[in-house]
Amino acid sequence: MPWPRHSALLTDLYELTMAAAYFENNLRATASFELFVRSLPPERTFLVAAGLDQALDYLETFQFGSGEIDYLRQQPVFSGVKREFFDYLRDLRFTGEVWALPEGTPVFGEEPLLRVTAPIIEAQIVETFLLSAITFQTMIASKAARVVAAAAGRPVIEFGSRRAHGPEAGPLAARAAFLGGCAGTSNVEAGMRFGIPVFGTLAHSFVMAYDDELEAFRRFEQLFPEHAVLLVDTYDTLAAVDKIIHSGLRPKSIRLDSGDLCQLSKEARRRLDAAGLPETKIFASGDLDEFAIAELLACGAEIDAFGVGTALSTSKDSPALSSVYKLVDVAAGATSYRAKFSDDKVTYPGRKQVFRFQAGGSYSEDVIACESEKCDGAQPLLECVLRSGRRIAAPPGLPQVQEYARREFAKLPAACRRLHHVQPYPVRFSARLQALLEELREHNHAPAGKSAG
Amino acid sequence: MPWPRHSALLTDLYELTMAAAYFENNLRATASFELFVRSLPPERTFLVAAGLDQALDYLETFQFGSGEIDYLRQQPVFSGVKREFFDYLRDLRFTGEVWALPEGTPVFGEEPLLRVTAPIIEAQIVETFLLSAITFQTMIASKAARVVAAAAGRPVIEFGSRRAHGPEAGPLAARAAFLGGCAGTSNVEAGMRFGIPVFGTLAHSFVMAYDDELEAFRRFEQLFPEHAVLLVDTYDTLAAVDKIIHSGLRPKSIRLDSGDLCQLSKEARRRLDAAGLPETKIFASGDLDEFAIAELLACGAEIDAFGVGTALSTSKDSPALSSVYKLVDVAAGATSYRAKFSDDKVTYPGRKQVFRFQAGGSYSEDVIACESEKCDGAQPLLECVLRSGRRIAAPPGLPQVQEYARREFAKLPAACRRLHHVQPYPVRFSARLQALLEELREHNHAPAGKSAG
Repeated sequence: MPWPRHSALLTDLYELTMAAAYFENNLRATASFELFVRSLPPERTFLVAAGLDQALDYLETFQFGSGEIDYLRQQPVFSGVKREFFDYLRDLRFTGEVWALPEGTPVFGEEPLLRVTAPIIEAQIVETFLLSAITFQTMIASKAARVVAAAAGRPVIEFGSRRAHGPEAGPLAARAAFLGGCAGTSNVEAGMRFGIPVFGTLAHSFVMAYDDELEAFRRFEQLFPEHAVLLVDTYDTLAAVDKIIHSGLRPKSIRLDSGDLCQLSKEARRRLDAAGLPETKIFASGDLDEFAIAELLACGAEIDAFGVGTALSTSKDSPALSSVYKLVDVAAGATSYRAKFSDDKVTYPGRKQVFRFQAGGSYSEDVIACESEKCDGAQPLLECVLRSGRRIAAPPGLPQVQEYARREFAKLPAACRRLHHVQPYPVRFSARLQALLEELREHNHAPAGKSAG
Repeated sequence: MPWPRHSALLTDLYELTMAAAYFENNLRATASFELFVRSLPPERTFLVAAGLDQALDYLETFQFGSGEIDYLRQQPVFSGVKREFFDYLRDLRFTGEVWALPEGTPVFGEEPLLRVTAPIIEAQIVETFLLSAITFQTMIASKAARVVAAAAGRPVIEFGSRRAHGPEAGPLAARAAFLGGCAGTSNVEAGMRFGIPVFGTLAHSFVMAYDDELEAFRRFEQLFPEHAVLLVDTYDTLAAVDKIIHSGLRPKSIRLDSGDLCQLSKEARRRLDAAGLPETKIFASGDLDEFAIAELLACGAEIDAFGVGTALSTSKDSPALSSVYKLVDVAAGATSYRAKFSDDKVTYPGRKQVFRFQAGGSYSEDVIACESEKCDGAQPLLECVLRSGRRIAAPPGLPQVQEYARREFAKLPAACRRLHHVQPYPVRFSARLQALLEELREHNHAPAGKSAG
């Protein structure tokens, strides 16, 4: 089920003022923009590409509503802009081409996740939406891959919707978390919209709504005999475990949500086993992240599955990526290549391809090269996914994307996948791309009669 | 303009399994839940309440669609739940009462931002949405108040949509940032939906689309003579300033976006003034936050306005709040008061009021008390805003809320408002509330024959 159509006004105002200026000056040249993360945050050694499906939904349905056009015309900034521009906007659709990394592909700093080639106005206006759609899901899928790896085969359920950045961020976080390896989500809308398995049973409030904790457990167990996960920490965790044992209930699972999860899980496991309940699983939650999970497992915690909320749905330790969308090529002027030379923010010119090398079953190095370069023995990662404004193929199902992401993640070098003593994955620019940047730098400075500096 | 109706499935699955269990067990008692932040993150000394308007929109329009009901019935977890429950859901509307802090009110840890009193099923199901709506905007408004205070009277424009957590988080972040004191946003949808002033002019790509930087400036200036903010750092910042000066352009403003903003702003100011352009303003952006802004101003930067993106739209240094929604009272069982005693997560029982004391024109202390308590000389903060599922009054306009927030912020003690050497604002629980917690703790442990521990 696709999203409802998004407003074309989900963009920054300057995309539209620039569009007006391109229109006024009759600049309709085809331009290429690349979306990439400048550099990985210190807390990450890899990213997992995600959000492409929503980005393509948006491009395929891009359109201004007449109320939106009216709003724009009333803005003081547009007072000097001719009516023709607004007529043009009214009929505007996205007609361009998109190359992208398949969702689930590991990706590193400077590597394009997406390239848009379209008439410059179209390519410009979609910048803000594409950045927010791709950046957010990529950030969450990346975090999920780390958390899932730390859980070492035990299922991880995403349940951070309540702390996600607004009600609509929850389903997107759930999608990205599933893509990154989670077994499911608590978010029901994500279940319906994206077909993700939904999980969840009871909260402290249910236990508290009854005078007696055990009565709450009995009533829940009776209605959901196959699914009940009884939350045992409302008052006293081990006392609640004992109540369950002595009551004759045989819950599918119990959930620990506070206290020393390692010690409580071991003691709960011991008591359950001794009482003949070896099949009752132990589910743990409560401010968990990849480091907490790794530590719990290292200390021998008897935990069968994890619920991870805030750390996952907000990528709490690294809640933003330095993603940008940069003009690299436009068929206008003396050269079509474009680059930016601000001292601390250089961007490389021209349409690019990312080539990934393997050695001994593992990925060994990436080379960011000009689109037209060949790179023997390496796999080109960017694929054409949209042409003339339409998808080339139906998107793969989310379970297939998850499986692809899992296989790709396993091919990363161990030093890049682990949590401690990590080593950066090697990424370099091709010699030809480096040379192109230098040529352009000279070309750019020449007309103004300045030396490079 | 209100949001489109939100799906009732924007919730956690356990809200619905609990609802089914309440329904099955005929538990329809009226319950009260309170939404509060457990404690302020170390990076914050106050919060600014926000998001209430969206929360109330949601409650007023709450309704399951028939496709949503069908989806739920197909979920394995509901296989044992009778048809009557789904018929009940189909007709369900929110009929309860809400007390809340007005948007813009400063708020601290443990203080309820919102209290919902409704039949327990209604009050339970809305938990997830209310948490995500209120938590996110409160977090962003709080960050905005800090950033705006650091700018010491200079306008701050929010332009972080591209890094917000998904495309829909952008307009909400813009709303909250405006409420917290920003002068406007770059997000056009936020402008249309919430009436927020929108700002923005040109990006590096516009400059790069032309062979010559000055040609790009001229064309933009020609179309937007009153509004153009010329971005000067695409190639060489001061060289671009010189080009502008020698061209005869008299732009309203220039924008610095990289490099040493303090030195560049001073030198740009000097050159503009010397060239007879004292009215051309200097706008600065580029990974700014409240600390960077304070430092720039402390070193004498000649900056007239700031653009703040990622740090604001993601509350990057503190991207989550420990917000919870806790059952405090339900008309069922031996006592109606409810509290949770997990060692590290105690919640206080009963419906509460927050009383705020003033001394010498400043707020001096808050007391969290039982709803029925009187607190001479203090102002009660929670107000009834919704009754029988309908708003009591139309919400105030956003500019009024911004002005209220500004005045309230100014009444906080200076040690709580500043960035360094801060002191926590004093908040305590009333003696009666403390006593109630202890009574309940004993009552709760008595039936099980255990001593408190």
